[in-house]
Amino acid sequence: MQNKFVQKGISEIQKYAKALLGNKNYVQKKLAQDPNYFTKLAQGQSPKYLLIGCSDSRAPPNELTETDPGEIFIHRNIANVVNMTDLNLNCVIQYAVEHLKVHNIIIMGHTYCGGVKAAMQQDSVGGLLDLWLNNIKHVYEKNQHLVNQFENENDRVACLSSLNVREQVLNMWKNPIVQKSWEVGHPVMVHGWLFRVETGYIEELQLDENIPESLSDVFRLHFKSAQQTAQGQQSKQNDDQLALPSLNSQKFQQMQSKLVTEFRKYSNHSQDCNHEMVNQISGILQNDPNFKKENK
Amino acid sequence: MQNKFVQKGISEIQKYAKALLGNKNYVQKKLAQDPNYFTKLAQGQSPKYLLIGCSDSRAPPNELTETDPGEIFIHRNIANVVNMTDLNLNCVIQYAVEHLKVHNIIIMGHTYCGGVKAAMQQDSVGGLLDLWLNNIKHVYEKNQHLVNQFENENDRVACLSSLNVREQVLNMWKNPIVQKSWEVGHPVMVHGWLFRVETGYIEELQLDENIPESLSDVFRLHFKSAQQTAQGQQSKQNDDQLALPSLNSQKFQQMQSKLVTEFRKYSNHSQDCNHEMVNQISGILQNDPNFKKENK
Amino acid sequence: MQNKFVQKGISEIQKYAKALLGNKNYVQKKLAQDPNYFTKLAQGQSPKYLLIGCSDSRAPPNELTETDPGEIFIHRNIANVVNMTDLNLNCVIQYAVEHLKVHNIIIMGHTYCGGVKAAMQQDSVGGLLDLWLNNIKHVYEKNQHLVNQFENENDRVACLSSLNVREQVLNMWKNPIVQKSWEVGHPVMVHGWLFRVETGYIEELQLDENIPESLSDVFRLHFKSAQQTAQGQQSKQNDDQLALPSLNSQKFQQMQSKLVTEFRKYSNHSQDCNHEMVNQISGILQNDPNFKKENK
Amino acid sequence: MQNKFVQKGISEIQKYAKALLGNKNYVQKKLAQDPNYFTKLAQGQSPKYLLIGCSDSRAPPNELTETDPGEIFIHRNIANVVNMTDLNLNCVIQYAVEHLKVHNIIIMGHTYCGGVKAAMQQDSVGGLLDLWLNNIKHVYEKNQHLVNQFENENDRVACLSSLNVREQVLNMWKNPIVQKSWEVGHPVMVHGWLFRVETGYIEELQLDENIPESLSDVFRLHFKSAQQTAQGQQSKQNDDQLALPSLNSQKFQQMQSKLVTEFRKYSNHSQDCNHEMVNQISGILQNDPNFKKENK
Repeated sequence: MQNKFVQKGISEIQKYAKALLGNKNYVQKKLAQDPNYFTKLAQGQSPKYLLIGCSDSRAPPNELTETDPGEIFIHRNIANVVNMTDLNLNCVIQYAVEHLKVHNIIIMGHTYCGGVKAAMQQDSVGGLLDLWLNNIKHVYEKNQHLVNQFENENDRVACLSSLNVREQVLNMWKNPIVQKSWEVGHPVMVHGWLFRVETGYIEELQLDENIPESLSDVFRLHFKSAQQTAQGQQSKQNDDQLALPSLNSQKFQQMQSKLVTEFRKYSNHSQDCNHEMVNQISGILQNDPNFKKENK
Repeated sequence: MQNKFVQKGISEIQKYAKALLGNKNYVQKKLAQDPNYFTKLAQGQSPKYLLIGCSDSRAPPNELTETDPGEIFIHRNIANVVNMTDLNLNCVIQYAVEHLKVHNIIIMGHTYCGGVKAAMQQDSVGGLLDLWLNNIKHVYEKNQHLVNQFENENDRVACLSSLNVREQVLNMWKNPIVQKSWEVGHPVMVHGWLFRVETGYIEELQLDENIPESLSDVFRLHFKSAQQTAQGQQSKQNDDQLALPSLNSQKFQQMQSKLVTEFRKYSNHSQDCNHEMVNQISGILQNDPNFKKENK
Repeated sequence: MQNKFVQKGISEIQKYAKALLGNKNYVQKKLAQDPNYFTKLAQGQSPKYLLIGCSDSRAPPNELTETDPGEIFIHRNIANVVNMTDLNLNCVIQYAVEHLKVHNIIIMGHTYCGGVKAAMQQDSVGGLLDLWLNNIKHVYEKNQHLVNQFENENDRVACLSSLNVREQVLNMWKNPIVQKSWEVGHPVMVHGWLFRVETGYIEELQLDENIPESLSDVFRLHFKSAQQTAQGQQSKQNDDQLALPSLNSQKFQQMQSKLVTEFRKYSNHSQDCNHEMVNQISGILQNDPNFKKENK
Repeated sequence: MQNKFVQKGISEIQKYAKALLGNKNYVQKKLAQDPNYFTKLAQGQSPKYLLIGCSDSRAPPNELTETDPGEIFIHRNIANVVNMTDLNLNCVIQYAVEHLKVHNIIIMGHTYCGGVKAAMQQDSVGGLLDLWLNNIKHVYEKNQHLVNQFENENDRVACLSSLNVREQVLNMWKNPIVQKSWEVGHPVMVHGWLFRVETGYIEELQLDENIPESLSDVFRLHFKSAQQTAQGQQSKQNDDQLALPSLNSQKFQQMQSKLVTEFRKYSNHSQDCNHEMVNQISGILQNDPNFKKENK
């Protein structure tokens, strides 16, 4: 019996040690490709997105997107919740937007999510989690008719996960840090993804394009010295900032939406952007009456 | 000028789209290896550790340890802080320990950490972050003599990052969810790692073994119905639980420590555990007077 | 000029010192009435309600209700918000319900509330407050048609304050600590009050009676060992618990509602409950078919 | 038996109704003194302090200091904790300091505090409270030698309550909102009080005077545009701001300390400040070498 106990103990420790051995392999592999890989990595980070994902072990963002270290700034919690009053998450947002100047924020939910599933049930899952899951229960309550039309439980979970992502994307648009960012001339886009564990594919939820315009005025904030602060920042950080003062944030966002649409067409044919495409889109925008009057 | 603006817009969107294209590659690669990979993944998760890491884009835990989806349950925040009163983090801990029954918790800090660096400086970094970084300023205040003996700033950051990991490991041992887990017969170990960005290697901080015993009684909690709850849980979940009721948690922990030490010796020679090793460790434990009296 | 500065300094300090002098008067007054007043107070507290109020200096609950020290357990924050994931507030609820065994929870909002007013406007009021006020902006968004029908701004604030109280009462009913309390045989009622600063009167919002029944199933939690825990607690604390095991929580609540209604009638005539009233209400309940079948 | 049950129900509801009846008495009493009392109160609040107190029903700040509605802005939580990362509390601080421009913040603890007592014991008091009480356990751990020298439990609780107030006063000085306030020319003092339930008296802890100077540089923050913001605010709000630009914050604080000391001497003789006193203190300050060089 003691042998069995020892074996259990060894097995637990081995799984732990496996990760450390994996690290040794990883370093050797990377160094074989580029002996300066890590010295370069130590120079600093300039990630292109902030991703808010679920803690679920099956949803590691870098793996799923074949993204290298240095590319995604990440926060993961139970069921990828963008809780308005969560200091932990809001510090991550502040760091990513104000210090790292990310331009894109992604909320990634996933199918077979244990947190979402628990939120659909009535059994208490523990004092702290019961409080946390109320964030998702609110989404469920509003959308029961949609969710419950699916017979299969996994489908119901997938449906609510998808609606949950949409809700958290809305919460992100309502966030004062994100809103202030727009006012100081640093536009941030918010995207919603659903990772389908059963296929491995990430679905881009088609909700980015109209949200900010349709966001209720109730949640639109004005920042006192935004104008001045923006000017101050722009003079200092000319490279990071967009150089079209006459084009305001809303226009930028319209353009981003157009670009997303155009890019989707092009990306079926080729992955790389070419000069032809730049010229074509420039042409489209130049003939667009919304942009025309801005740039006469 | 407009061309330049469009190019900037396209470039931002391309980086975003690159991740989605990466996902397509990833799925195809995985399916080529195992056509049922994702259907199996969808069956459920049984991660072996909970890892609390930093949001820094250069420190993705799975990549660095060559760990597959399904192996690590992850929370990432600014500077890998285990804040006692943080509901977000505590929900992650509750889910990992009480529902997923993980046996190992890892706190992973890293060198060149922007959050740790900011905590060493006096410039405000924004209303929310200033509050958050006080968690690390407390560690810095207590250890200024150690940190400031390094001339180079990166070394000072590395030193404080390492001390910060130690502090957060202590906070995790003080956590009531972790403590309750021990009382109900589900022992959890807490480990500290420092990822050295400049070399790629993860250092295991040698602090696991004595902490729980030396933890002040002030933080040791007793749980009323722990005995009963434990019995209730054990009858239900026989497979997950250790089958030695006479061996209490403290003994298990001593054994884990011994196993860690032994395993480190062995792991230099071979990665796989063999029967010889099991027998040897059984022998060591059987001759250990602490364990002997437990198992007569 | 220095004299002026000194006078300002003295004036600030005097206001501070005035409170300490007020304390000396208070003690002497109390001791004159009862020389053992404070020694008795030190024996312990057994408050009858938990009140969640606003931090506003004009809304001190004890004063407004002529309630003595020892009678109300109090939490006050900006705009009396019952934020689901707020550890601070939830600790107050846990202490009040599980340790002090309060039977009534009151959410008290007030007219002329600066927090509610700020939530109706679009100007940022600071990084932390902007996050917090989103709690109220959600209430405003849902009820703009009601709020905006008032021309006068103070009326709009009063209307939203009142709707905010209603929302926070709902949040309290959804709270797992409150729900668990009902399951273990300790029923808790949640009430909503609006303090009208301009008249001094507290209005009892007529929303208590139907909420718990109409609460969506989505938010109703079941607690595993509630039955057992309840039994354990009841055997220990017979005095505090209601002695009618056959009468379940829902019945208790119906009875409370009836009592509230009856009591309102009686309280117009006399403040003290008399035996006649007890008998009358007993009679009413005995003839109520809902209660009849419970008590045959 | 049913009669007994109804009586219990009536008794609970009567206690609740008593508070509402008390409110009617209160209003009538106030209106008898001043028919415009409440209409004046509705004009706005300009409280002189922010007080962070305990939720304990025996410690209502206004009562204990005979302070009127409109004088103290109040937050109350379990054991008057100034938790750095608590959004709820930090919103109260931001509102009080930045919007209401309070000049004094008081942390008031009390003897016989249930929260402090629970923090000294090892029995779990519930999932959320265990987390919260770690705030106080840290204070206890550092000061066990002081606390445990008392034989009587109530004395140990009183000792730890007092040390807890001191710790929370320190936390308040470290708060970025309070620190920023000093930088923009709005100095805020932080005081510690211990309410002795058994005597009714409030003790002013003698710790105000040296803290800010002795605060480790680690916690001293610098705010980028403080100078400019200060100028902007001062031009707008000349009345609220002190008109001595040559006298920096540290000097103001020294003067406040002196005034506190002087005021204590005078307050034994008379409660009202008189011109003689102003002149005397002006004289003291004028002969003080620290102030002299500032004002030559």
